[in-house]
Formats: sequence, C-alpha cells, structure tokens
Amino acid sequence: MIDFAATRRLFHLPEGMIYLDGNSLGPLPVAAEARVAGVMRGEWGGQLIKAWNTADWINLPRRVGDRIGTLIGAPAGSVATGDTLSIKVFQALSAALAMRPERRVVLSDTGNFPSDLYIAQGLLQALGRGLELRLVAPEDVADAIDESVAVTLITEVDYRTGRMHDMAALTAKAHAAGAIAVWDLAHSAGAIPVDLTAADADFAVGCTYKYLNGGPGAPAFIYVAPRFAESAQPILSGWMGHEAPFAFDLDYRPHASVERMRVGTPPVLALAVLDAALDAWEGVDMADIRVQSTRLSERFIAEVEARCPDLDLASPRDPHARGSQVSFRHPQGYAIMQALIANGVVGDFRAPDLIRFGFTPLYLSEDEVVDAARILERVMTERLWDDPAYATRSAVT
Amino acid sequence: MIDFAATRRLFHLPEGMIYLDGNSLGPLPVAAEARVAGVMRGEWGGQLIKAWNTADWINLPRRVGDRIGTLIGAPAGSVATGDTLSIKVFQALSAALAMRPERRVVLSDTGNFPSDLYIAQGLLQALGRGLELRLVAPEDVADAIDESVAVTLITEVDYRTGRMHDMAALTAKAHAAGAIAVWDLAHSAGAIPVDLTAADADFAVGCTYKYLNGGPGAPAFIYVAPRFAESAQPILSGWMGHEAPFAFDLDYRPHASVERMRVGTPPVLALAVLDAALDAWEGVDMADIRVQSTRLSERFIAEVEARCPDLDLASPRDPHARGSQVSFRHPQGYAIMQALIANGVVGDFRAPDLIRFGFTPLYLSEDEVVDAARILERVMTERLWDDPAYATRSAVT
Repeated sequence: MIDFAATRRLFHLPEGMIYLDGNSLGPLPVAAEARVAGVMRGEWGGQLIKAWNTADWINLPRRVGDRIGTLIGAPAGSVATGDTLSIKVFQALSAALAMRPERRVVLSDTGNFPSDLYIAQGLLQALGRGLELRLVAPEDVADAIDESVAVTLITEVDYRTGRMHDMAALTAKAHAAGAIAVWDLAHSAGAIPVDLTAADADFAVGCTYKYLNGGPGAPAFIYVAPRFAESAQPILSGWMGHEAPFAFDLDYRPHASVERMRVGTPPVLALAVLDAALDAWEGVDMADIRVQSTRLSERFIAEVEARCPDLDLASPRDPHARGSQVSFRHPQGYAIMQALIANGVVGDFRAPDLIRFGFTPLYLSEDEVVDAARILERVMTERLWDDPAYATRSAVT
Repeated sequence: MIDFAATRRLFHLPEGMIYLDGNSLGPLPVAAEARVAGVMRGEWGGQLIKAWNTADWINLPRRVGDRIGTLIGAPAGSVATGDTLSIKVFQALSAALAMRPERRVVLSDTGNFPSDLYIAQGLLQALGRGLELRLVAPEDVADAIDESVAVTLITEVDYRTGRMHDMAALTAKAHAAGAIAVWDLAHSAGAIPVDLTAADADFAVGCTYKYLNGGPGAPAFIYVAPRFAESAQPILSGWMGHEAPFAFDLDYRPHASVERMRVGTPPVLALAVLDAALDAWEGVDMADIRVQSTRLSERFIAEVEARCPDLDLASPRDPHARGSQVSFRHPQGYAIMQALIANGVVGDFRAPDLIRFGFTPLYLSEDEVVDAARILERVMTERLWDDPAYATRSAVT
C-alpha cells in the first residue's frame, strides 16, 4: 500500500487550507520548483539554443507522454504531449472522422465538458458535408450508438457529478456499430484506474493540471491506439509532427508514430514542471489510489449527509459508478461554496447549483475530509453563506 | 536613444559565449526567474485554484497580448496569446478562408517557414472543396496576387535569408484583388518596426521565443484587425474563446472580441515568463532598435566579407530589404557552424548550406559582432570545421 503520509510531503499545501479542488487544479509539487529553476538557469540561461540537444528538450514531449501512458494503460510510444486539451480533442475527433468518411454523426452527451462540445461544433461547421453533433443524456449514450455514428466523443467521468461511463462496454458497442471511440480522460488520469489497451479505445485525450498536478494550463496529452499510429490523419499538421522537422521540406509528411500529433515547438518549461509533477506517481498503483479515494469520498458523503440535510447528493451513490469527486446540489450553491472557501475548505462551484469536491489521496487525509464536512455543517447551520459578500460571482470559482 | 549597456544587464548571458542566435531562441531575462518562482510558490503554491481570480490568471493572456501589441502597431484588445505559432496560423488561415468562400487559392511562397505551409496543407486537405496552396518564389508574390486568391499567407521576414517582404504594399495589392492578408511575424516582432494598423493587415500571428525572449516553446500570439473582431470565425472554438466560459452552456457562442481566438486553459507559468520578458521592451522604440540592428548587421557583413572570401552572402545586401538576421552560404555550412559554436560563437544552420546569425541590440554589442567575425575567420582559415566531430547532424542546430 502507498505511504500517503510520505506522498503528501511531495506537495506544497498552504497551512490552514483543506484542499478539495485537486480535480480542478492540483497543488504545487515540491520537486517542480527546483526543476523549473534548473531548467531556466542551467539549461535556457546557460546553454541557450544548444539545450535543445544538450538537455534533450526535443524529446521531452515523448518522455513525458510515456510517463503518463503508464497511468492510463497506454504502451510506450503511444502518447504525445503538448497544446491544450481542447486542441487535442480537435485532433482526435478530426482523425477519427476521417476514418469514417461515409458517416455523419458525432455522438456525445450533455454531461460532456462544454469545451469538447464547442470544439466539435467548430470542427463540424468547418468541415460541412452534413456532419451532425448528436447529444443525448449521459445515461442514454449506450442506446444511442447505432450504425449512423461515425465517432463517439465521451468524457469518461462527468465534470459536474463524477458519474462514470463504462469505457470498455461503450467502446465495444461503438466498435460493434462500426464507430470510432474517442475518450476524454480529463477527470480520469490520476483519478481512477484507466486501461486504454484493455478497453480497446481508439483515441484518448486528457489534461494534466488536475489530478496529475502539472500546474495551471499545463500541457495536454493525446493517445492514439498503436494500430492507427501510422494512419491517423493529423489535421493540425505542424512541423513537430513531421517525419523530419529539420529537413525543412516544403511538403508535410507525417511522422510514422504518435509523434504526428505534435504540432508546434514544445512548451519546455511547462513540460519540465509536469515531468517533475509525475515524479509523485512513480511506483504508485492506481488500484491503491482507487481504494483510498473511495474511502475518502464515502466518508465525506456519510458525514455531509448526516450533518447537512439541506444538501442533495448529485453524484452516483454507488462508488463504482463515480470517479474521484462528489457533488451536492443546493439553490444557494454558489454562496455556500464562497463561504466554505472563506472558512478554509476549498472546493468549487459549477452552474447552476452544484458544489463540487475532489478526492486526491496523494495529499488528502481522511481527517481533513471529516473536518471539511464539519466546516460545511457550520456554514449551513449558521447560514454563513447568507452574506452579501458571497452573492457576486467572480470569473472562476 | 536606448542605453544598450543597461538593457544587456536585463539578460543572463553565459560567460565566453557570443550569442548570435536570438532569432531562434532569446536568452533568459533576469526578471523571469524571480517572476516564475513567485508565481509557483506564491500563487500556485499559496493560493491554488483561487489564483485564477486573486492573481488574475484568467486575464493574463489579454494583458500579455496588449503588451505585444505595442511592439507591432496593434491597438489594445486586438492581440490574443496562447498555443503555438502553428496553431495560430491554423486559426488565422481558417478564419480568412471563411471570408472568401467563393475562392480557392491560398497564396504563399517557398521562403515561408515550412510549418506554415504544412498547417495550410492539413487545413486545406480537411476542408476539401478544391482548395489549393499555391507556392511561388518570394520575389514573385506580388505578381502572383490575382482575383483567384482567397488568402495570402506570408511570413514577413524569410527565416533562411532574412529577406523582407513589403507588408504594406503586398497587403494593399491583396486587398485590391479582394484577398485577405495573413502575416506571420515570427522573425519580425521585436526584430524590426511593424505597424499592422498602418499596413492594414487583416490577421497576423507570431511567436515569442525569438526576439521577444519568452523562453523555449513560449506562447504564440494572433492579431485580428478590429474590423473583424466580431465576425472572424474561430475553427478552434474552445471554451476560453466563449462569450461566457463559466456559464458552461452546451452551445458555443464566440466572444465579441479577439478573445474568441483563445482556445483552452491558458499556460499560466509560460505566460508569466513571457510577461517578465516583455519588461525589457518597456519604453523601447523599435525605430531605435532598427538603427542599431542595421549597424550591427552591416558591420558583421563587412567584417566577414573582408575576412572570409569563401562565404557567400545569402541575405539581401540592402539593409532595408532584410530583417535582423544575416546568412552566408557554404557547402560545408553545417560543419562550419559546429566549429564556430565549439569556439564560442553561437549561430545556427539551416539546410542545405546556410549559416545564420541574428542581431539583437538589447543584449548584443558591436565588439562582440567583430569578435564573432574574427573567430569565424579563424574557423575558415585554419579549417577548424574539417574535423570528423562536426560531420554528424544532431536534431536541432
């Protein structure tokens, strides 16, 4: 079993804050500070352009991709890193659509993260040819997969409720109908066990600033099933995905691997921070994380339900049916979360009425979870949220 | 006039290195180290998710964009930052093409940076509808603009030779033919005076890791002429370009400004580094930079031509016709550059036979330029390049 007291020491955690928002932005890994200082002073500062070779910056995206791969059941050489999750959704969806030129439907659900839907809308509008984004309720996805569907574009764990899709079952159903399965792992990677190989996923994408603790706006990743590594068509055909970027040919020829999903010059500093953040995952078995995450979330639900009768559980009650987060509903959810934050418990709010809490065993203890429930109880019973200061919404919560 | 001795102190420059590759990767700004340490420890580490508001991370892309705008003749609110240059080329070209749906030709030149051409190829292939990328020699662009052209996609300064296009004249010609003008400022921003407003450019894109010293893989930028701010169609319609990202609507509605060209979650650490790098440009008049840059490059050409008869000038001899870089040709160019680097003068090599040198007045002195020419003379006369160690090409030069 993991020594969670030891993994907790790998992170900077502010005194007096109980952090239940690692599902939105993970904390600063201690190792990241020294790493980025070294990259700046020693590599960029000391070697300048030569560091692309001497510090092997050029292969950093691949090395980081392989490390992420170990957490999501992806073999070495099947994960590329860089850009943002929205860009990676665009790449995966475009490549998947190109594999089913005779079909017209992209199937997704109303619980998908809006940016995935927006990106699909922008791509489909640009491509024309009668393509359609079909949205169904999350629980209706399986039934909606039929032979009209070109691509299923599904986020495994619902960002609002934590409700989890069955990746292996939906992928099998998509394949049986002749569709390509694209999975978004934004709330999965580092949160729950994922096995892309066993699930037979075609493409997967994800971000690294949540459970992987890569920092605000950290680089994203994309997985391409090895069977498609030499055929997936990159719409964002930038020079770093070229077979020979430094030949400076006038014609694009994609690299014969997942590297074709690289686009522009890699964000070296951000990748170095992410690389340092991944140190905390060395030797960690996601099955152990899952056991502890379930323990934490079950305890939190039990404590909150016993203490706060006005809050309604919005997440699946069955822990096997949810990821590593729990949400409750209340009409005053926004003000409640603001009051909770002011009292040292940081979760977040999602419109219209959800207060949301993430469970991250690497640095969150069961005692903190109980304390958070106690403070939430006080916010509710003393109506601390009923303060005009908490009525105005700020840009990000 | 600028106090260049003072601006030089704003950068870390390794002892014993003459750096003539700021056109590829600018040096580490001293201010960037403290800035990134503060963002990591104080903001990310100390405030976690709250820093999106408390440290105003959410508006960082716009603030940095406005600072870049002052260097390229773009008004406040017309420049968005993020992603990579290749992504920004994709956005600009796609939006421009959507404005001329009845035309079929994207006009570019064989001196354009290959990634721009690759991106165009990927986009045109995906869009279909008979679109064509038409490439002509750099000097033939003006004559090739006719009423078949939907979009001109031109990099102002040639990455190999430094040859400069006349932005105002080509834009006027494009407009007279009914085409949309997209400009790539990769080798212009911070290198030469640029006035997008006076030139009446429609779109412009650029990177920030060269003359702007934003660090390896630093975020890119895109300019949208204010007349198109509310109509340019974003193909990469990510949530950060939405009118109300945190409403989490299921339908995309673009922001009524250049912000619609934002895509995913902004790379906060990299933007903070870039923001610190831009401090060095505060109060700097690009006209003064141009005078000094011309002095440096003219001196370098004169010294090299006097000392190294085997090297052929590949750049325009007229300083008004080139940017802030100079290239020479030699069949053994790769080995010559390797020998030069080993002797403390860092430039770079571009296939098949160019040795390339950038001139960056903020931190490069005329004495260094003369010393570099002397060392190059020694490499040539003593045939230092004729060493087997310099025969193998590494990934990046």
